[in-house]
Amino acid sequence: MTEQNGRDLQREKGEATRKRKWEMRQEKKRLLALKQQQEAEKKRREDEAFMREALRQAQKAAALGDVPIGCVIVFRGKIIARGYNRRNADKSVLSHAEIISIKKACKKIGDWRLEDCTMYVTLEPCPMCAGAIVQARIPRVVIGSRNPKAGCAGSVLDLFHEKGFNHQVELEDGVLQEDCTDMLEEFFRDLRCKKAADIGKA
Amino acid sequence: MTEQNGRDLQREKGEATRKRKWEMRQEKKRLLALKQQQEAEKKRREDEAFMREALRQAQKAAALGDVPIGCVIVFRGKIIARGYNRRNADKSVLSHAEIISIKKACKKIGDWRLEDCTMYVTLEPCPMCAGAIVQARIPRVVIGSRNPKAGCAGSVLDLFHEKGFNHQVELEDGVLQEDCTDMLEEFFRDLRCKKAADIGKA
Repeated sequence: MTEQNGRDLQREKGEATRKRKWEMRQEKKRLLALKQQQEAEKKRREDEAFMREALRQAQKAAALGDVPIGCVIVFRGKIIARGYNRRNADKSVLSHAEIISIKKACKKIGDWRLEDCTMYVTLEPCPMCAGAIVQARIPRVVIGSRNPKAGCAGSVLDLFHEKGFNHQVELEDGVLQEDCTDMLEEFFRDLRCKKAADIGKA
Repeated sequence: MTEQNGRDLQREKGEATRKRKWEMRQEKKRLLALKQQQEAEKKRREDEAFMREALRQAQKAAALGDVPIGCVIVFRGKIIARGYNRRNADKSVLSHAEIISIKKACKKIGDWRLEDCTMYVTLEPCPMCAGAIVQARIPRVVIGSRNPKAGCAGSVLDLFHEKGFNHQVELEDGVLQEDCTDMLEEFFRDLRCKKAADIGKA
């Protein structure tokens, strides 16, 4: 073997090693991205499953004639509290879906802090409920549709990311948004039809 | 009587009439100001009397070992609901003095709207309670001391005058402020002494 041939062989080996290593790095990156994507999809599916239960709760409110808003609170992968809007049925401002759920969750956990919980609610919380979420130190809230008239998770105000408070809340937005919005729109359409029919009768 | 004398007499009469009228107007103004002052004083005395009842409620919280915050809700000159902070005693974030009082008042009035009520509370409300006040459409809130860490009647945020909401709240500030602040300071001083004593024992 000539000196030139030896150098060529070494260079080829070096290039092959670099190529192999580069391919390994690329494969690792691809696998990591895939894993992250799978995890995000799994989380989304999980979020959607819990939001479906919140929607079932909202249906109970509609059956009572109350605005259909439902909520569940999840602790370590399990639902520990369910609630639906009963403001008119109970004639109490405190009978919002979120407040009912928070009350039940505090009782279940035995603490006023709900630090390892996630709340799923079909409509963006009002100032009272957003404030209760901050006070209870709930770390993550998943919402269905936005509430442009009174929503306090970014629509009118953002109580979840107010630096003046000692707690901030992570927000996941728009999970089963269409279902949540449709349910509300249907409720108000029915209400208008009923009112029009009542006026027609009178 | 000469023509000159006649004119002088008329002028004098005119001046006397103007003076009398001016004095009457001044007297009317003085009486109105006095009446307004008396009404303001009466209102202040009334506010202080209701705040004293809120302070008595706060003492019940301190007796339980909870931060001393008390609240009353007044409807047409009468107290219809009393509440004090029981957050630690009940292990529930919803056991703030204001929330307990609002719940009782809704039950008493039979409506989720508390439109003719005044709330008296020893400490500026947190975001949850300020939100509940807005949601319940309470028109007037009287507070004792300010809460710079979480107060939402102007300290950290002002939920009472947020134009995005469909309800604004009139605020009366600093009624029996010294008593309200002293009670809180005494509570935290005692708590620190107790903690120091416990560390000393250990």
